[in-house]
Amino acid sequence: MNKGQGCVRIVTVPLPRLGNNIGDVERLIGVSKEELETDRVAISLEAMKALPALLRRCNHRIKLILSKESSGWNITGVQDPDAEEAVWGIALDMGTTRLVARLMDLETGRTLGEQGFDNPQIRIAPDVLARIHHAGRPGGLEELKSVLIHSINHSVRTLCEGAGCGVESVYSMVCAGNTAISHFFMGVDPSNIIREPYIPAVNVPGTLDARYLGLCINPGARVFVFPNIGSYFGGDLVAGILFSGIHKKENPSILVDVGTNAEVVLGTKEWLIACAGAAGPALEGGMSKMGMMAAPGVIDRVAIDPVSCGIKVHTIGDEPAVGICGSAMIDLAAGLFSSGMMDIRGKFARERCADRLVQEGGMDTFVLVPAEESGTGSPITLSQVDLNSLTSSKAAMYSILQIMVEHTAGMSFGDLDHFYVAGTFGSFIDPGSAISIGMLPDIPMDRFKVLGNSSLEGAALLMNNPDLLDEIEIIRQRLTYVELNVNQEFMNIFSGAKFYPHTDRSRFPSVTGYLP
Amino acid sequence: MNKGQGCVRIVTVPLPRLGNNIGDVERLIGVSKEELETDRVAISLEAMKALPALLRRCNHRIKLILSKESSGWNITGVQDPDAEEAVWGIALDMGTTRLVARLMDLETGRTLGEQGFDNPQIRIAPDVLARIHHAGRPGGLEELKSVLIHSINHSVRTLCEGAGCGVESVYSMVCAGNTAISHFFMGVDPSNIIREPYIPAVNVPGTLDARYLGLCINPGARVFVFPNIGSYFGGDLVAGILFSGIHKKENPSILVDVGTNAEVVLGTKEWLIACAGAAGPALEGGMSKMGMMAAPGVIDRVAIDPVSCGIKVHTIGDEPAVGICGSAMIDLAAGLFSSGMMDIRGKFARERCADRLVQEGGMDTFVLVPAEESGTGSPITLSQVDLNSLTSSKAAMYSILQIMVEHTAGMSFGDLDHFYVAGTFGSFIDPGSAISIGMLPDIPMDRFKVLGNSSLEGAALLMNNPDLLDEIEIIRQRLTYVELNVNQEFMNIFSGAKFYPHTDRSRFPSVTGYLP
Repeated sequence: MNKGQGCVRIVTVPLPRLGNNIGDVERLIGVSKEELETDRVAISLEAMKALPALLRRCNHRIKLILSKESSGWNITGVQDPDAEEAVWGIALDMGTTRLVARLMDLETGRTLGEQGFDNPQIRIAPDVLARIHHAGRPGGLEELKSVLIHSINHSVRTLCEGAGCGVESVYSMVCAGNTAISHFFMGVDPSNIIREPYIPAVNVPGTLDARYLGLCINPGARVFVFPNIGSYFGGDLVAGILFSGIHKKENPSILVDVGTNAEVVLGTKEWLIACAGAAGPALEGGMSKMGMMAAPGVIDRVAIDPVSCGIKVHTIGDEPAVGICGSAMIDLAAGLFSSGMMDIRGKFARERCADRLVQEGGMDTFVLVPAEESGTGSPITLSQVDLNSLTSSKAAMYSILQIMVEHTAGMSFGDLDHFYVAGTFGSFIDPGSAISIGMLPDIPMDRFKVLGNSSLEGAALLMNNPDLLDEIEIIRQRLTYVELNVNQEFMNIFSGAKFYPHTDRSRFPSVTGYLP
Repeated sequence: MNKGQGCVRIVTVPLPRLGNNIGDVERLIGVSKEELETDRVAISLEAMKALPALLRRCNHRIKLILSKESSGWNITGVQDPDAEEAVWGIALDMGTTRLVARLMDLETGRTLGEQGFDNPQIRIAPDVLARIHHAGRPGGLEELKSVLIHSINHSVRTLCEGAGCGVESVYSMVCAGNTAISHFFMGVDPSNIIREPYIPAVNVPGTLDARYLGLCINPGARVFVFPNIGSYFGGDLVAGILFSGIHKKENPSILVDVGTNAEVVLGTKEWLIACAGAAGPALEGGMSKMGMMAAPGVIDRVAIDPVSCGIKVHTIGDEPAVGICGSAMIDLAAGLFSSGMMDIRGKFARERCADRLVQEGGMDTFVLVPAEESGTGSPITLSQVDLNSLTSSKAAMYSILQIMVEHTAGMSFGDLDHFYVAGTFGSFIDPGSAISIGMLPDIPMDRFKVLGNSSLEGAALLMNNPDLLDEIEIIRQRLTYVELNVNQEFMNIFSGAKFYPHTDRSRFPSVTGYLP
């Protein structure tokens, strides 16, 4: 099916005549069933209302705007095919800290605009856990839902204005988010997500009415919410799998989505296993007092000369440095290690660091950018505590991968055809740096593929090709979620991974480290 | 299926457990599919929202409130089975002049209350044609819809208050009305109903969301609108057929719904043919200047002694007479004819009428109740013009029946096993009187069955037994609508039927008329 063809069709409805009392709606549904080769076609009340006048104005040739759903097709709108009215859709990635909305033309599949915006729930409660607790208070769930929907409506309106039409041109929305945010989005009680036995209220919301959700788009519009696999494996990951295509490949691939959590999916077209583990605070935003999201002045790349220990930093927008983001932290650790400024235990090496190392609150602190060069008037620093936190995070990441690939699937990293890295943060990681600190496995660089916002891309993919609903259902049914047991075995693996790059050097043949 | 069982079930949902991440909604849908023996079960967002807390409060044993629809079952609500919360439904007959709402208990099938109320659209436009024209004006359709919905909401609230619960206890509504009012109810453009080739916008609305229609009942409630057969054969008639059961009988029966129009359905379990024709103004309300709806003081029965010409009138509530209703008009005509006060042409016979006949505006006028006995201070009278109008109406009725039974179906009236009379007005007709004026065919009296408000009863039947959806679809597909052609043949038949009881006396062997 070509792009866009799935959602928009032009049909010619048979003319009414005396002696045949078939209603307008029934004649339309009849011809739609033929066109779509199905016997399950429903129609929105909005489309029903618009149909009689439109049919006669357009000589019974009309444009159908369709939503494919698990229960069949739904005619969400009807238009004059010659009027060149917009038929748009919104693909939406709903993250705990940030959302991204993409406006798409359903007829061409083209992207018309994209906008990222902060999750306004942050103002109510910083993380998922706190928000779920807040939802349990009187009016709390409604508050969390309404600020979220309000911000989405605002973004949709901005995108539509930018593209030159009104929000009523949006006939479809495809949303992917983690399990908690999907519950908030629908206003459904998320409390059992964090209570044993950790059961979501709903895993397969399916397709809902935009109006019920409070979304200000076309009143007949339908909203697909990606299914969750469980409390700790959300629709954003399912969308990511869809986008990566690992569920269709002959040979095993792995998908790692690194955000607040590290979610890992391993599989082929025959099987899929998944697990999620805490990636640690070092990997996104709040790592150190300097850690921050991508913004002008944030350091996003660090390079250190292993011999001279000279440091080059790159900031977003080439502005004076104001902070450091997660991917640059990995570059930094890689540089510190290869230049000998950090030892294999992840401790600063005083001699090599020289005057870059200062004491702050009685703690070794590495000055990355001195005060006089920074954009804040203070130096951009990394303390031993910050570094320890990064060490834990990278060790956790590698341990999860090792457990999944070696222990659960009984394979070796070398068996992986593709290593997909996704997530807001994952997208910026330099695989070379990540390998050299022992965070990612030491496999050929060309096997790493950075996917970007795979949740958004998966949503956009479905928007352009509703037949992918079947693939989503296959992913959902095929995927086995493996609980990560933090037991003695895990702790042993984790301890080994806390070294740079690893206690077992044979795992990282390409990483030489500092050779004085 | 027992009464009520179709819409309410109690199920035990499997307990969630660690290692099984099936969501609450999916576990409920799983057990519902088993209970209902189907694989098509959907759930409302409202029920989704209520489910997580309810499941845990009720130890996973819950009451499901269900709606059976053409696309499968829909869980509209969930309740604590031990809380004895009300689960109600509203059966609604939507007439051009009057609506009747019946509040029912979905668990027992019992009627909890019933209320008739005027169609508020009358204030905007008196009849269907004028309303359809009004709908074409800016805001007209919305106005007609909103006054209608408002009046329904008001009635539902009154009924619920009377039964001791709130409107949120109403989970289901089944509505039957003519084609135009069904369009108004949904806010769908009715204009093509009266424009060649007379095609409704929609014949099969199916089941809709209460909220979309503006109905103030449970937010998850679903509303079934009986399908129309065409512009001139509405869902009220389909509901009437369902209630009469003629579509299930071995031998032919006929159903006549006499209101503003006379709609006739003839058939067996093998076939159904229908036609609608103007019954004439004499048959409801506005007949003469005295004609009025059933109300205190309205004459509803008239008996005339054929020898003495003594007249007995009965009024509603035994109040002094203020007017005369359609059924009493038929009694009156029958009495006038049998007493010789009216001849076979339907003209007053001066000698027999004696001083009952006066001149008013130069026209023979019959005094039924003298001024001194009436409740208005004026006499209750019937002019020759009023009588002519009744004559035309009764002739039209008989002609339609003759065309249907003899010409279209090729049968004789004697072949009819049952003759069902329905409609607000039809319910009050005395078949003996109607036969003696040649309005209804001269068949044994025990074949006549008065159905009352068959539209409302059909709606109530479906409310208690959702399996009847299949029968409704069978009726819809099997029924052939025959256009009544007012051609020379019809005019010949009509001319014969304008005599009392008929020019062909062999058609009315039991009617002797006045034998002086």
